Amino acid sequence: MLADAQLLLDYASVFVFALTGALVASRGQLDIVGFIFFAVLTAVGGRTVRDLLFGRDVIFWVARPSLILAAVAAAIIVFFTAHLLESRYRALLWFDALALAVAVPAGVDFAISAGYGAIIVTMAGVITASAGGLMRDVISNEVPLLLKQGELYLTAAFGGALAALAFDACGLPHGWGLIACGLVTFALRAGSM
Amino acid sequence: MLADAQLLLDYASVFVFALTGALVASRGQLDIVGFIFFAVLTAVGGRTVRDLLFGRDVIFWVARPSLILAAVAAAIIVFFTAHLLESRYRALLWFDALALAVAVPAGVDFAISAGYGAIIVTMAGVITASAGGLMRDVISNEVPLLLKQGELYLTAAFGGALAALAFDACGLPHGWGLIACGLVTFALRAGSM
Amino acid sequence: MLADAQLLLDYASVFVFALTGALVASRGQLDIVGFIFFAVLTAVGGRTVRDLLFGRDVIFWVARPSLILAAVAAAIIVFFTAHLLESRYRALLWFDALALAVAVPAGVDFAISAGYGAIIVTMAGVITASAGGLMRDVISNEVPLLLKQGELYLTAAFGGALAALAFDACGLPHGWGLIACGLVTFALRAGSM
Repeated sequence: MLADAQLLLDYASVFVFALTGALVASRGQLDIVGFIFFAVLTAVGGRTVRDLLFGRDVIFWVARPSLILAAVAAAIIVFFTAHLLESRYRALLWFDALALAVAVPAGVDFAISAGYGAIIVTMAGVITASAGGLMRDVISNEVPLLLKQGELYLTAAFGGALAALAFDACGLPHGWGLIACGLVTFALRAGSM
Repeated sequence: MLADAQLLLDYASVFVFALTGALVASRGQLDIVGFIFFAVLTAVGGRTVRDLLFGRDVIFWVARPSLILAAVAAAIIVFFTAHLLESRYRALLWFDALALAVAVPAGVDFAISAGYGAIIVTMAGVITASAGGLMRDVISNEVPLLLKQGELYLTAAFGGALAALAFDACGLPHGWGLIACGLVTFALRAGSM
Repeated sequence: MLADAQLLLDYASVFVFALTGALVASRGQLDIVGFIFFAVLTAVGGRTVRDLLFGRDVIFWVARPSLILAAVAAAIIVFFTAHLLESRYRALLWFDALALAVAVPAGVDFAISAGYGAIIVTMAGVITASAGGLMRDVISNEVPLLLKQGELYLTAAFGGALAALAFDACGLPHGWGLIACGLVTFALRAGSM
């Protein structure tokens, strides 16, 4: 059942990140293929970089290709509904905050489970959470969200990782630490928007 | 003999991609080292990303360094002849279309031979074909060719991958599918220019 | 003792590259987290790419996480002192030249020790030296330093690699070749500034 929850979270995370990629495509008035490109890139970018850096034998979406379909589905949904949104940028920010709050604990969990120390745990959390959005913003030639003034983006990711480490250091259950990590990340990020 | 043809295609693909990189350097009025930089980056970028993602032990140009020399040769040729071209952008588009029509089947072939399913085959074809040009455009601060409106770039790569998969699904010879893949890619791309 | 010198050089290289990243953050008036982001990215980027391409099992900073702390220290120092500098761009250029003159020999040394030939040795030197700064410039949306006209950036890296190869070809001690590599790189780079 834990594995099921993990899997559901994987699909949800890919889906929400893909929504943010598709919203960037929508702001750039791209065609449907452009939506799919940005959705897939954003959805799998961060964790792909993490898998490469930390030596996983098989990249996660190569092992489970249907995650790509989840990203494509998000792209198609945004393609047909984005014009209904009052502010696509606003929606982008909120979905991105949500994705951040899922991705930081996912990265932190991976690194703690693999036995890494505090520095690498923090790096894994921040990289998993930010690399996909960073590529999305660099390729679409926008100022990267994570570098915008007054937006506590990296700070939120950093704070979330610290929360998980603190729970761990206090000997509290690992799952509680991950939930705290997600909540702290989301609170810091949303609070700064 | 098949291995010879494969090898010839590798050099040709690197060479043509390198031409597009050098043409971008030419438009930016860089010096000869800048030409070589963009030629090599574009020539090996896409397949390097593919090798990293799909876990090849040795990156293809590390295993065969003379491919780098082919890219350098392309850079030098363009450096001394680009001023003779009437429109460097036009030449860039045509060489890029040609490179795309070689790279998509190469990526598709790799993934089918490795036993992957339709989703990963499509991803491999699109990534092999587009990552080099994407890095070229992002670094030279141009709007990525693959995101330009009305240019069927990713669509062409996608269509080519589907053609190869369709041939495979019909039980036709693998080689025919790859040729169809290249032709469909080129037709879609060139038709949109 | 050689291992100690190597280790000291690793920390020094990370520190100096981190200074250049932090100076870019300073020019962009980012907050402290932005300083740390650019410092860490620039400090470890080039060698991380090299480790990925040449198949090291463990990325160097994952094996020695305290290198990340050296980069963070550089970021904090620049954050509190950058306003004292007369020209941050000038300082950036000089630190970058210094980092280049350490990174080219480091990359060359790695590739020669691994038994690679001249082409791969040159590629390793250039990639180790330039990939971090390239990512720094692309993400901060500046014209990459290595592509600026009249700045002998890649040329310097290239010349340094050739110097090391020439020493090796003449049968001179490996260490002399690396020192010559660093000096040639620095002389060419600084001379063009």
